[in-house]
Amino acid sequence: MKNILTLVFNYSALRKHLPPIFSQFRFSHSDNLPQWGSNKTHRKIKIPNPHREIIMADPKIEEILAPLRACVKEQGDLVRKLKEEKAPEIDIKKAVAELKNRKKILEDKELSLSPAEELFDRSKMEDLIKRRFFYDQSFAIYGGITGQFDFGPMGCALKSNMIQLWRKYFILQEQMLEVDCSILTPEPVLKASGHVERFADLMTKDIKTGECFRLDHLIKAHLEKIKSEKNTAAELKAEIEDILVKLDGMNADEMSALMKRFDMKSPISGNELTAPIEFNLMFNTQIGPSGLVKGFLRPETAQGIFVNFKRLLEFNQGRLPFAAAQIGNSFRNEISPRSGLLRVREFTMCEIEHFCDTKDHPKFESIKDTQMLFYSADSQEQGRPAEILTIGEAVARGTVNNETLGYFMARIHLYMLAVGIDPKKLRFRQHMGNEMAHYACDCWDAECLSSYGWVECVGCADRSAYDLTQHTKATGTRLAAEKKLPAPKQIEVVEAIPNKAAIGKEFKKDAKVINDALASMDSTALEQLQEKLENDGEFALNTPNGDFKLTPKLVSVKKTQKTIHVEEIIPSVIEPSFGVGRILYCILEHNFKMREGDEQRTYFSLPATVAPMKCAVLPLSGNVEFQPFVRELSQELTNVDVSHKVDDSSGSIGRRYARTDELGVPYAITVDFDTMKEPHTVTLRERDSMGQIRLPLQEVPTVVRDLANSKISWADAEAKYPKFEQQENVKGVAA
Amino acid sequence: MKNILTLVFNYSALRKHLPPIFSQFRFSHSDNLPQWGSNKTHRKIKIPNPHREIIMADPKIEEILAPLRACVKEQGDLVRKLKEEKAPEIDIKKAVAELKNRKKILEDKELSLSPAEELFDRSKMEDLIKRRFFYDQSFAIYGGITGQFDFGPMGCALKSNMIQLWRKYFILQEQMLEVDCSILTPEPVLKASGHVERFADLMTKDIKTGECFRLDHLIKAHLEKIKSEKNTAAELKAEIEDILVKLDGMNADEMSALMKRFDMKSPISGNELTAPIEFNLMFNTQIGPSGLVKGFLRPETAQGIFVNFKRLLEFNQGRLPFAAAQIGNSFRNEISPRSGLLRVREFTMCEIEHFCDTKDHPKFESIKDTQMLFYSADSQEQGRPAEILTIGEAVARGTVNNETLGYFMARIHLYMLAVGIDPKKLRFRQHMGNEMAHYACDCWDAECLSSYGWVECVGCADRSAYDLTQHTKATGTRLAAEKKLPAPKQIEVVEAIPNKAAIGKEFKKDAKVINDALASMDSTALEQLQEKLENDGEFALNTPNGDFKLTPKLVSVKKTQKTIHVEEIIPSVIEPSFGVGRILYCILEHNFKMREGDEQRTYFSLPATVAPMKCAVLPLSGNVEFQPFVRELSQELTNVDVSHKVDDSSGSIGRRYARTDELGVPYAITVDFDTMKEPHTVTLRERDSMGQIRLPLQEVPTVVRDLANSKISWADAEAKYPKFEQQENVKGVAA
Repeated sequence: MKNILTLVFNYSALRKHLPPIFSQFRFSHSDNLPQWGSNKTHRKIKIPNPHREIIMADPKIEEILAPLRACVKEQGDLVRKLKEEKAPEIDIKKAVAELKNRKKILEDKELSLSPAEELFDRSKMEDLIKRRFFYDQSFAIYGGITGQFDFGPMGCALKSNMIQLWRKYFILQEQMLEVDCSILTPEPVLKASGHVERFADLMTKDIKTGECFRLDHLIKAHLEKIKSEKNTAAELKAEIEDILVKLDGMNADEMSALMKRFDMKSPISGNELTAPIEFNLMFNTQIGPSGLVKGFLRPETAQGIFVNFKRLLEFNQGRLPFAAAQIGNSFRNEISPRSGLLRVREFTMCEIEHFCDTKDHPKFESIKDTQMLFYSADSQEQGRPAEILTIGEAVARGTVNNETLGYFMARIHLYMLAVGIDPKKLRFRQHMGNEMAHYACDCWDAECLSSYGWVECVGCADRSAYDLTQHTKATGTRLAAEKKLPAPKQIEVVEAIPNKAAIGKEFKKDAKVINDALASMDSTALEQLQEKLENDGEFALNTPNGDFKLTPKLVSVKKTQKTIHVEEIIPSVIEPSFGVGRILYCILEHNFKMREGDEQRTYFSLPATVAPMKCAVLPLSGNVEFQPFVRELSQELTNVDVSHKVDDSSGSIGRRYARTDELGVPYAITVDFDTMKEPHTVTLRERDSMGQIRLPLQEVPTVVRDLANSKISWADAEAKYPKFEQQENVKGVAA
Repeated sequence: MKNILTLVFNYSALRKHLPPIFSQFRFSHSDNLPQWGSNKTHRKIKIPNPHREIIMADPKIEEILAPLRACVKEQGDLVRKLKEEKAPEIDIKKAVAELKNRKKILEDKELSLSPAEELFDRSKMEDLIKRRFFYDQSFAIYGGITGQFDFGPMGCALKSNMIQLWRKYFILQEQMLEVDCSILTPEPVLKASGHVERFADLMTKDIKTGECFRLDHLIKAHLEKIKSEKNTAAELKAEIEDILVKLDGMNADEMSALMKRFDMKSPISGNELTAPIEFNLMFNTQIGPSGLVKGFLRPETAQGIFVNFKRLLEFNQGRLPFAAAQIGNSFRNEISPRSGLLRVREFTMCEIEHFCDTKDHPKFESIKDTQMLFYSADSQEQGRPAEILTIGEAVARGTVNNETLGYFMARIHLYMLAVGIDPKKLRFRQHMGNEMAHYACDCWDAECLSSYGWVECVGCADRSAYDLTQHTKATGTRLAAEKKLPAPKQIEVVEAIPNKAAIGKEFKKDAKVINDALASMDSTALEQLQEKLENDGEFALNTPNGDFKLTPKLVSVKKTQKTIHVEEIIPSVIEPSFGVGRILYCILEHNFKMREGDEQRTYFSLPATVAPMKCAVLPLSGNVEFQPFVRELSQELTNVDVSHKVDDSSGSIGRRYARTDELGVPYAITVDFDTMKEPHTVTLRERDSMGQIRLPLQEVPTVVRDLANSKISWADAEAKYPKFEQQENVKGVAA
């Protein structure tokens, strides 16, 4: 069971081939997880409560953990020391690998000792998800495709409510600029961003069946098996350990050599395997009929924002900071999708790119007291547990780098709670030095604890000026903003002044290339030019058409003073990036409940804000006299924008309550024989408490609306209206 | 200018390669339209008012049109007669082509004579759309890709508001089952639906430049040119006419022969052209790393609903009718995208599939008095203009086939008006017999009049049981519903009873195939089997493994009586299908206005429901004392969910009003020096009338909310609060 609750992510395996920008929230995720629907191994999983207070509360537990913590700290200190001493990379890598091992042992122990909150039965939840069509495998009648899911009415409504709330929380409240960009992306864009070259994994194929394997996973599994065998010589074991440490940095040839040396075959069929194949994770296609424009399905929505930077800046009247946001689908051709919604080939993202020149934030004050669980890089390296701080403290202490990053982290935290994530199962984990991109000041993932372990759901990272710089280089269009200087500044401008007429005469058709080369010289080159002209009387200019000898007659260097009022800056980018499907899955897990004493009666305790429907309308029986009341009620609910479902199917009222519970519907209105009498009244039932009240028919639509919008609480409603006492038949009513 | 205002669509050109299901709303559209941003030819376009009353009001106009109407009617009658007489297909085709010509002449004349409502300047509107980044070409800094557009903040908000209203109008109010299915679709699904085989156009390439041309367009243009030349012999002209009529039905070989015979070259470079190439309009890719699973980007969202039919039916507790809906992107690799948003490669659709067994509709009564403009097939064939009827009359008369279709048409009509389509520029055009798929009972497109002519924006068609039947055939999964019979029914069941032991013994490994073949025999086949066994004492059974001789010892035929309570039916499908981008474009055209007397001051008169923002907040000047009021106001507007923008940039208040007008923002609140005094008041301005009122600061957020939600009208607000009189500087303030 331990491998399910692992807290250590195999980031490095995914990251090695990726450029810096992918080292953040890239849906990397613990591997070796079961496929959707294969429930065999995980009947019931203990979900521990990881909060520090609880762990710290028991001195006995801390006693057990103390030596393990010391052990991590010792190794963390060693890694630090090696880095400071600029020790050979292989030594650092080895030390980091050992640090990770020790961290894993500590965290596994920590989880195993913390008091279990509940037993979670994933197969039961998956059964409910399929049976009530929250989502299910796409194209199932055609045999299905792994890594693709269709959302049914309930999953779709949940997803759409999550997105609507996201739009309100971020776009409307922060007045962000929402864009909606193309999914099909031509190759040059993704070449500039680094995706074409490096968004790839090495794989190998079974030469007979064509089955594909991720090569690093295959080698690792193969070598670990040899290492674990009794009769393996100690020498070989040590060598294998060495190889495993180096594996992350190996290229295709090195891996190929390993495959040959250890005679690796398909672990499934035993067949021969192909040589390593570089496999890009982007889906490719051709745009237009000519076959000349190669394109990809975007692997993230962010690039659409970057290529529109100029238009957005202009829309914002040239001013920084501003944030742009995009909600949309992205695509990754995973070699082996798994774990249901957690690793898929097609997924919805909500991404924000906040462009700024300073990192303080005007609204930081408003959220500074938000309490969150932080698992800093330092804590991870020093064997300390995650700790609860206010975001204000975290920024003041320097745990979180700056206010802007902190502001977004707090807003992410609040959003996650609003959609139904259990605050006890939400933490912000900082990337450690060895997993963070070289440019990043700071980088935090919002992780949710699930039966698959901690799952990255939102990444919040500083992308610096990387993307804008890359697209500027590729297109020649300067993606930069102008910033007014506090005071005008005198600067010295150095330029080469070509004698165009003379150059034209002497070099004819090469004149343009020469003039272009002169115009693009930077200050160092210009100094050289001046020096050579003065001292040697000539300068050899390097151009794409070859070298050309220039004399003082042909070119001179001029220095002038210039007053500037603005400076050009390429803004930094803070990127909060939400994986909607992953959050949705965690919401479902965190809200999956069983009625006490009846394991068969499961339900989703979803907050009304995101619940697929706010309300069910249930006529007690098929009596035709109920119909006009039901119809009118439905109309009135529609008028006040309360999404609802009339369930007039046969089946006892208890059975129908159970069904609405399964759908996560928070309220149910029952029309019965008393409704017909004047004054017309109905019963209103709340899902979680199963409490019922009796209230006038004409008041119920607005009461449900106010409950659903959190304008009033269920306690308020219970205080106002009389309780309705009638035992629900809670036993054996699940349909 | 006539070709812009054409009312005749070149449907046949698109349709010829398509299976019946594509003959409806398939984004076919008048061709030969200019590219995005090429404004040269269309500086100003007269948009006529096409309504019948106006046309009919002037007897002089009717006098001119009368002979043209008679001319159409004569030909329409001829077509009808030929069809009744089952004349040779070529004769019918010729007659239809002539009918279309006559129809076009009539409609062009009709438009040219109808009183012009306004002058529309498309280049001015496109300039505004780009300048304020409603939308613009994707990847422009990389040179751009035709047929792909990015929506900026204003376009995106408009689109998202349109979709949100659509969800409310259709999904919530009609309690439809919304789904969200995969875009990547494996080949077998689209083979079954007919897309792989027939969703294709023939094209030809310039052998040197690689430029592609749609072959039918190329041939048509080439032959029409020859036909129009003075020195072309009358005989050849007649022959060309004949060819043009047949062109629609020609295959690749026939077209190739024409290319050779008339020595066709690239019309652009004069280079040689390749032989005809069949080009499928779907984008293809591989799903997964093995390259074995061929997939496409879906060309419509509908198939995702059909393949989930069983799950949806079950979700609806097995009952009919029900409707499923999907909002999402679809993709078509157009050979030559054009006309801005009207023909693109990537587009958002909102599709409904209403599954039903009867065509009456319980809510028809509620919309039966909706007045709409109908252009029936009959009117088109008889040269009559479109006419205004209530949908109740249209169904009663049989103009519209049934209540369900009528109900959806009326709901479409109401939705279109709610999002800002001009009712005078909206009509429902029925497909004519020759453009309608053979199965369809009825098929209507909601068309909007634009400077590109009438544009199909919503299709509303009966797809019958086509798709469910196709997927049933392909998968063996029966996509059918069970319907309770009014009374139990006795039926005779005939089946083949194999003697499995004997068959196994005699045929060994072929036994299974034989048993399967016997089990799948229909009643006719079973009758034959029985007859042969009785008369000849043997029967030759045809199977995939060959023929096998069966004797009465091996198989018998049994008839039994069975009482059934339900019957299996494959439901009919009514499909309203909305092209969001096309509607959005038409909304922009219909709401593009100029201030009287100032052509430079253009704006979008968008309804508040869909306007990108409901309100602007404008501090009169940069005075710091305004800031707390602005901040508080913005917070209060956020609290009541009013999307807004604070514009505290420099520039006169008039210039900033002009800017908010350009963005289509309906209301603007100005904070000025009087705001600072107690009681605090602000100015509220309405965009279209430019009227201003003065009201208390704390009342303004709810007043704007109620205005934006149409709970109160501007007249109500003007009646309640004092008018604020201050001349707007309307001249020359556009930024």
